[in-house]
Amino acid sequence: MRIKAIVSYDGSEYKGWQRQPHGNSVQQAIEKGLAEFHKKEIIVVASGRTDAGVHALGQVIHFDTDLTITEEKWVRAMNRHTPRNIHFIKAEIVDDEFHSRFHTTGKTYEYRFSLEPFNVHRYKYCTYVEKKLDVDKMIEAADVFVGTHDFTSFCANTLIETPNQVRTVNEISFRKEGEEWVVTFSGDGFLRYMVRMLMATLMAIGEGRITKEDAKNWLEAKDKRVCRFNAPPNGLYLKEVRY
Amino acid sequence: MRIKAIVSYDGSEYKGWQRQPHGNSVQQAIEKGLAEFHKKEIIVVASGRTDAGVHALGQVIHFDTDLTITEEKWVRAMNRHTPRNIHFIKAEIVDDEFHSRFHTTGKTYEYRFSLEPFNVHRYKYCTYVEKKLDVDKMIEAADVFVGTHDFTSFCANTLIETPNQVRTVNEISFRKEGEEWVVTFSGDGFLRYMVRMLMATLMAIGEGRITKEDAKNWLEAKDKRVCRFNAPPNGLYLKEVRY
Repeated sequence: MRIKAIVSYDGSEYKGWQRQPHGNSVQQAIEKGLAEFHKKEIIVVASGRTDAGVHALGQVIHFDTDLTITEEKWVRAMNRHTPRNIHFIKAEIVDDEFHSRFHTTGKTYEYRFSLEPFNVHRYKYCTYVEKKLDVDKMIEAADVFVGTHDFTSFCANTLIETPNQVRTVNEISFRKEGEEWVVTFSGDGFLRYMVRMLMATLMAIGEGRITKEDAKNWLEAKDKRVCRFNAPPNGLYLKEVRY
Repeated sequence: MRIKAIVSYDGSEYKGWQRQPHGNSVQQAIEKGLAEFHKKEIIVVASGRTDAGVHALGQVIHFDTDLTITEEKWVRAMNRHTPRNIHFIKAEIVDDEFHSRFHTTGKTYEYRFSLEPFNVHRYKYCTYVEKKLDVDKMIEAADVFVGTHDFTSFCANTLIETPNQVRTVNEISFRKEGEEWVVTFSGDGFLRYMVRMLMATLMAIGEGRITKEDAKNWLEAKDKRVCRFNAPPNGLYLKEVRY
């Protein structure tokens, strides 16, 4: 039987999603929990990796099991066997064909930043920007990236591993939540570091270091060398995965 | 020269304020930082201890130094030499007579709790209550504790170490910040566990386990055995210390 589950985690306490030889990864923590009550090894597949420090509100995973437990009890069982910084929200029994990585049709990320003074209780969950940012300029420039584009300039994937770097971004929107800005990125898929590189480019525009025109030129250049910006991981959340 | 400083810290990463033989305490982290640029040991005195897991927004400390640095540069120097989870907000050169513990005239604490579903990014900063709480009942009951009372029943100090357990609570007020409730406790001073025991008692009233009358009787009993409740440390913040 295949189980699909939605899971949130505090990325500040892990070296990213993926299993590491000596590392503390979210995948290992979940697999360890599942192994505890399956009494055997269970391999978990996620919709995609998240890097060290990156958070999840709605990461989607799947795994195969021969235990027959109700969906509600799956959530409780998994939360009992994983640390508190990993929290399962939902579990579903799905068709054996379902694949959390190969069948995604879209993802939404959020990026949190703040222009307020550094807050010791929030810095792992929000990027504190010491420089002045003109957020209106950032909002205005964001439409450069919306639509279907070749994002070669704004990701870390090599063209050998990922020959097609064309992706569709449906939405980049800004909202204020208390003292924090939350930027929503929605699209059919995002390349490695793509959200953080787009975010950092928008921040450079807000700072006045580059212009909207520069961003446009960089996008058209399809050149890994043009964008040197990468926003810190702590502000990034994988919000939702669609199928 | 004596320096008074205001410091915030993430209590979830420390075993409390006080120096420990094998522990990771806030005091040790600050003293280590000060020793780095003084090239000698510096002893730091705080307005009071905070327990493991308890946060500070405005803890006040003092120490003596022979370095002549401007007040602004003190803040920067201390932030450079302490981990990011400890953050200095202000420093002041004060009279040599000033004492951060003995001269306090009042303190304010905040306690955060939430009735919303568990949030993996907030549980170290807010207490998630799974039971239903009638917050109106809690607000209504809080006035039992306001005023000058003998808080023997609501603290962990023995009567030998602290013969006088009379304190004045000026304010217990509730406000909502997003999904979290924030309860402010202001008074001339608080005994060990006092805020957490009062908070837990109010929660028990909100839950319907005890009544406002019970709380009143417990207060009047001046008996260490009556109150068995203690709210978790993670929701508690030392907000302000007055002199």
